[in-house]
Amino acid sequence: MANVRVAGTGVTPFGASPERTGRDLFAEASIEAFEDSDVPRDDVEAVFYGNFMGELAEHQGHQGPLMAEAAGVQAPATRFESACASSGAAVREAVTRIRTGENDVLLVGGAERMTNLGTAGATEALAIAADDLWEVRAGMTFPGAYALMAQAYFDAFGGDREDLAAIAVKNHENALPNENAQYQRAIEVGDVLEAPPVSEPLGLYDACPISDGASALVLTSEDYAEEHDLETPVAITGTGQGGDRMALHDREHLARSPAAREAGAEAYADAGIDASDVDIAEVHDCFTIAEVLALEALDLEPIGEGISAARDGRTTADGELPVNLSGGLKAKGHPVGATGASQIAEITMLLAGTHPNSDYVADATTGVAHNAGGTVASALVHVLEVVA
Amino acid sequence: MANVRVAGTGVTPFGASPERTGRDLFAEASIEAFEDSDVPRDDVEAVFYGNFMGELAEHQGHQGPLMAEAAGVQAPATRFESACASSGAAVREAVTRIRTGENDVLLVGGAERMTNLGTAGATEALAIAADDLWEVRAGMTFPGAYALMAQAYFDAFGGDREDLAAIAVKNHENALPNENAQYQRAIEVGDVLEAPPVSEPLGLYDACPISDGASALVLTSEDYAEEHDLETPVAITGTGQGGDRMALHDREHLARSPAAREAGAEAYADAGIDASDVDIAEVHDCFTIAEVLALEALDLEPIGEGISAARDGRTTADGELPVNLSGGLKAKGHPVGATGASQIAEITMLLAGTHPNSDYVADATTGVAHNAGGTVASALVHVLEVVA
Repeated sequence: MANVRVAGTGVTPFGASPERTGRDLFAEASIEAFEDSDVPRDDVEAVFYGNFMGELAEHQGHQGPLMAEAAGVQAPATRFESACASSGAAVREAVTRIRTGENDVLLVGGAERMTNLGTAGATEALAIAADDLWEVRAGMTFPGAYALMAQAYFDAFGGDREDLAAIAVKNHENALPNENAQYQRAIEVGDVLEAPPVSEPLGLYDACPISDGASALVLTSEDYAEEHDLETPVAITGTGQGGDRMALHDREHLARSPAAREAGAEAYADAGIDASDVDIAEVHDCFTIAEVLALEALDLEPIGEGISAARDGRTTADGELPVNLSGGLKAKGHPVGATGASQIAEITMLLAGTHPNSDYVADATTGVAHNAGGTVASALVHVLEVVA
Repeated sequence: MANVRVAGTGVTPFGASPERTGRDLFAEASIEAFEDSDVPRDDVEAVFYGNFMGELAEHQGHQGPLMAEAAGVQAPATRFESACASSGAAVREAVTRIRTGENDVLLVGGAERMTNLGTAGATEALAIAADDLWEVRAGMTFPGAYALMAQAYFDAFGGDREDLAAIAVKNHENALPNENAQYQRAIEVGDVLEAPPVSEPLGLYDACPISDGASALVLTSEDYAEEHDLETPVAITGTGQGGDRMALHDREHLARSPAAREAGAEAYADAGIDASDVDIAEVHDCFTIAEVLALEALDLEPIGEGISAARDGRTTADGELPVNLSGGLKAKGHPVGATGASQIAEITMLLAGTHPNSDYVADATTGVAHNAGGTVASALVHVLEVVA
């Protein structure tokens, strides 16, 4: 099957813009993506859009047509919702449609408005990604869930809060030159260790922030890109999806993410690569421990060794496998519905040499994006490669 | 491209079951679909699921994996949300995936829990399918929106409340033998005309009820069905999707549904049929006027003539083109996320000769299902045909 070209990317600044509507944010991202792509809006055949909590944050469902309108596109639109993996799910269907020849040009992306809910309101809204009957009513929130996963990891494989702190420090460092990042501010291990506890063993600096923002991608077929002489140096060459039970108590091991392993294996096989071919990765570090579990699930670190990757410099910007060069969810921010497509945008820019951190990875040809929903009951993985 | 076989269908009774959770309802529908299909759960490659208001009705997002679990399926799951066309959107992506060879076996369906919200709560929740900024905050509800459309129709083309009443009477009549219907109760034109007004010119009996329920389909490729000797007399041979501006004030004509016209034309072309080939139709009659607009958008009635179709007997069970033999949303009920897939189930049973109303359409070979979101800002149309 033909590969899918990333013709244009657009990402708004992530951060606190409580006065801006989701459609306002998505309009900005899509304008940037169209300008970047040289693709006329009239060529767009459909809009695939990810959003998680619009019903609660904006009293707005049915956002597909609304976002097509915001983007100035007259085409059918579909909203995907897979919690924090919502736009990853949208990307997957778009990639499938283009590769099978159903479509040539699609607008894909996502948006989320969160900070208008306040921290407590957003935390409660995020909880609808967990099992309401068995987890949420028992008082579980996502910081609590990821704290359980971190403690289970420590118990099974060792590691400590300083290992996790190194991940936060690394991702803040990576975000320094990223103008769209919510935090362009260096932190030190001591800051992380001394931050207020959120849910033991995780503190405030182990968690990603609550963010508003949007992302958009113009994806085209190879044929369309070539016929229109588009500059499309990066292609999406692999897609994978995995699923798991929703409730954490149903998992075999709290410190494993089989859905992400399944999605990664499928994406690698689809692209015809091995984990060892990956040069850069954007992984879903909603909490520091999540980056560890992602690296292990994607076979980028052996089981039990992901915990030391940042601290030992393997995943820092100048390490062998730079992870979250964008700043990750931790420092770039995490407007839920926008995250998956924004990861694809970041990898595209890194591989194309147009990212402020591209110099670290001048020889990189292969990147992987990992987008997770809930406690990884949903996982979407995509492989991107420089077009030969 | 190969067609898609409907290997199994399952629909719960629609009605008021305020104590039952969405997963409970979907489990029932999927058990029925698997039993009907003879397809083992282990063969399911993915779950495509439609739900609209789970965030508000059950404090539950991320329902994809939850519903895979409820169905006893271990496979990745994606939730689609296109307001009242949510499971229509899920069906479309599933059909595309199977036809392009990406998948052989998919579980598709939807569920909605509504009655636990009460009538006022459900009406407010339904309003998130409209434009919150421009419509909902101005006080518009869906009965109000469809009343505007009805009045615009009367002004442009004539017709009166008695014409609309004939649609309600017809659909209640059709529902009499349908054990899953919310209302198995005949009504008369006088009942409709004398019912309490909801929003002029529409009264209570012009509106579909608020319903709980679920629907499920096991869809397979032709190859899979033949290799496994499945009894699959009906195929989905065409799919179409259309989109429009969200807010009613942005439409060129309040009494036209260009998104449905676009979806219908695409689905007919995809199946290689004309509107004149259609023998039966299930259309999205959330209000009586919606059936009129649907028939005209699908070219099953000329513009301005759909209003008289039921009253003149053209769309009754013994008419030339029976419409909503299931009872339609009006009498069968409308658990929003379940509706689109349930229409496919009803058409399948009607064409296969297993529906209590099949006797009316013994010679029918071609059916069309029309599923709409909001005031038809989203429209999904599917063509089903008896396998030759």
